[in-house]
Amino acid sequence: MAELLAITWEDERDEIVLLDQTKLPNSIEYIAYKSVEGIYDAIKTMVVRGAPAIGVTAAYGMYFSAKNAPEDSFGKFYEKLVEDGQYLNSSRPTAVNLSWAIKRMIRKAKEVKNLKVREIKKILRDEAKLINEEDITICRKIGENLITLLKDKMGILTHCNAGQLATSKYGTATSPMYLAKEKGWKFKVYSDETRPRLQGSTLTALELYMAGIDVTTITDNMAAVVMSQKKIDAVIVGCDRIAKNGDTANKIGTFGVSILAKYFNIPVYIAAPTPSIDLSAATGKDIPIEERDEKEVTNRFGVRTVPKGVNVYNPSFDVTPHDNITAIVTEKGIVYPPFKENLQKLLEKI
Amino acid sequence: MAELLAITWEDERDEIVLLDQTKLPNSIEYIAYKSVEGIYDAIKTMVVRGAPAIGVTAAYGMYFSAKNAPEDSFGKFYEKLVEDGQYLNSSRPTAVNLSWAIKRMIRKAKEVKNLKVREIKKILRDEAKLINEEDITICRKIGENLITLLKDKMGILTHCNAGQLATSKYGTATSPMYLAKEKGWKFKVYSDETRPRLQGSTLTALELYMAGIDVTTITDNMAAVVMSQKKIDAVIVGCDRIAKNGDTANKIGTFGVSILAKYFNIPVYIAAPTPSIDLSAATGKDIPIEERDEKEVTNRFGVRTVPKGVNVYNPSFDVTPHDNITAIVTEKGIVYPPFKENLQKLLEKI
Repeated sequence: MAELLAITWEDERDEIVLLDQTKLPNSIEYIAYKSVEGIYDAIKTMVVRGAPAIGVTAAYGMYFSAKNAPEDSFGKFYEKLVEDGQYLNSSRPTAVNLSWAIKRMIRKAKEVKNLKVREIKKILRDEAKLINEEDITICRKIGENLITLLKDKMGILTHCNAGQLATSKYGTATSPMYLAKEKGWKFKVYSDETRPRLQGSTLTALELYMAGIDVTTITDNMAAVVMSQKKIDAVIVGCDRIAKNGDTANKIGTFGVSILAKYFNIPVYIAAPTPSIDLSAATGKDIPIEERDEKEVTNRFGVRTVPKGVNVYNPSFDVTPHDNITAIVTEKGIVYPPFKENLQKLLEKI
Repeated sequence: MAELLAITWEDERDEIVLLDQTKLPNSIEYIAYKSVEGIYDAIKTMVVRGAPAIGVTAAYGMYFSAKNAPEDSFGKFYEKLVEDGQYLNSSRPTAVNLSWAIKRMIRKAKEVKNLKVREIKKILRDEAKLINEEDITICRKIGENLITLLKDKMGILTHCNAGQLATSKYGTATSPMYLAKEKGWKFKVYSDETRPRLQGSTLTALELYMAGIDVTTITDNMAAVVMSQKKIDAVIVGCDRIAKNGDTANKIGTFGVSILAKYFNIPVYIAAPTPSIDLSAATGKDIPIEERDEKEVTNRFGVRTVPKGVNVYNPSFDVTPHDNITAIVTEKGIVYPPFKENLQKLLEKI
């Protein structure tokens, strides 16, 4: 068994190696890329997924664009870079990290435009590696902060995949688990399978298992029983967006888990990089909830499990009210209630 | 669209027609039976499932045995009946209703042993039909009692299949839905898909849809969101066993639903024929919880969804504590807390 990494930068070969996540969990295959076209395909076909991992991959894609761009003038070089940036940005239209990483790479090129193009190329290579390292640092820092709330021999419940497979390393919700493993702690993770897309069983359980962490898959509706058996000391989940008052949008089912945790007096920790905090959303009501194709519910894995004609409701996310959250743990520190004041303070501190 | 019935007795043809539930939800096929061997196969291969439906089917199976038994003496006739009863009873070893129905048919034969064998055969035919009708009456009565707690235009959440497909008609939890439909009520049913075996989507959603009832399938982890949107006015579920204090064992996930309902102040009604009340179990702790094959979780969609090597926990039932139950509704009446006293009173009344 070897730890699974979504992204590996091969410095000597000057290429990026991606885990092909379309083949998980039944086959573990890696693909090497060294062109912007390759990276476009990798993002579009979801060889790589998860907003932070997509951002890092796109940064390397922009480096490959630069590497192959003309060297005779900055104008021509820059034109090609912008053109490839637009192309790469169209691979997944909604991921914020994708356009953020592309813009940062283009901005960097502009900043050093007075240097020789050959040197700019080297700088963009370093910038992509920096974006990669920053992602690792943020995730590790979240883990270091979160682990101060945990103890050896704990039982942890997680939902969906806020894992290493969605980032460069460590993940967000999974970060304290990898750090606890480093410390030699004994602990047990329960991973909700997370219908309809099953990220909990196909991704989270897989990555933790490959890292040698004791993980048990349960169906979502077993969480109450496992909690009642006192097997869970903490719930740790990631998030998609946090409103000003602490209401937190995350994968469908998180809200229900938070209610169960409250019933059993189990703390709920949200693992979140600070960019997930959106002060422009006053409460969870300001976070739009995406409804997705009913086929995710009716036809997962090709077999029809809901009769034709039956209505299907498939909200992809839900909002956990701030009252059900014990703490929000970021790379900059731990935020406790009252979240409205304390999230503001955290962001001002930076 | 036609209403789905698990069992139909064809009086003129002297045969029983079973819905082949192994083909659901993607194909609706019926099979006619007129021998005890056929009935044995139908129960064993789960063409028919659900304890009450199995009991009724077995009663007809015993009639077929009697019909084909020798007529020259009661002794020979009775010997064949007992032999076939043992054979039929081995089709599904754990279903209580199966052995109950077989014993009742054999007892009936013994009661009228002084009559001519040809007449006994007719009496056994009537007894099987009576068992069938009693099942229908009990289910309808549960529905009549439960509907007094409901109103037109309500939203109802149900979990697993305590439906018509598990009984002769009406089901238990679904009985008030069929009666509300008869009254012309407009209402919406949300059916949890009920992992791992998906009885909620493949059976409950199917039977309600075929009966023209407005039903929506959700994954189990969507119940909290649907409740928060005020779409649910009552939770109605069946049960496997009720302890003396009202603690109720039912399909895995029911406990979690009851916690969510409590959080949102939604009443939880248990639909239960009185034989489900087991006064010999003081509390839910005295009800053993079956753990089932992990393949139900890992391979339900035909493809493996949990990586090999990952632990799986698969308890098939959970116990909803009596504090989370608003009322237990039986064919004999509605029982409110304190359940310990009131369940006892209900059973004494009978």
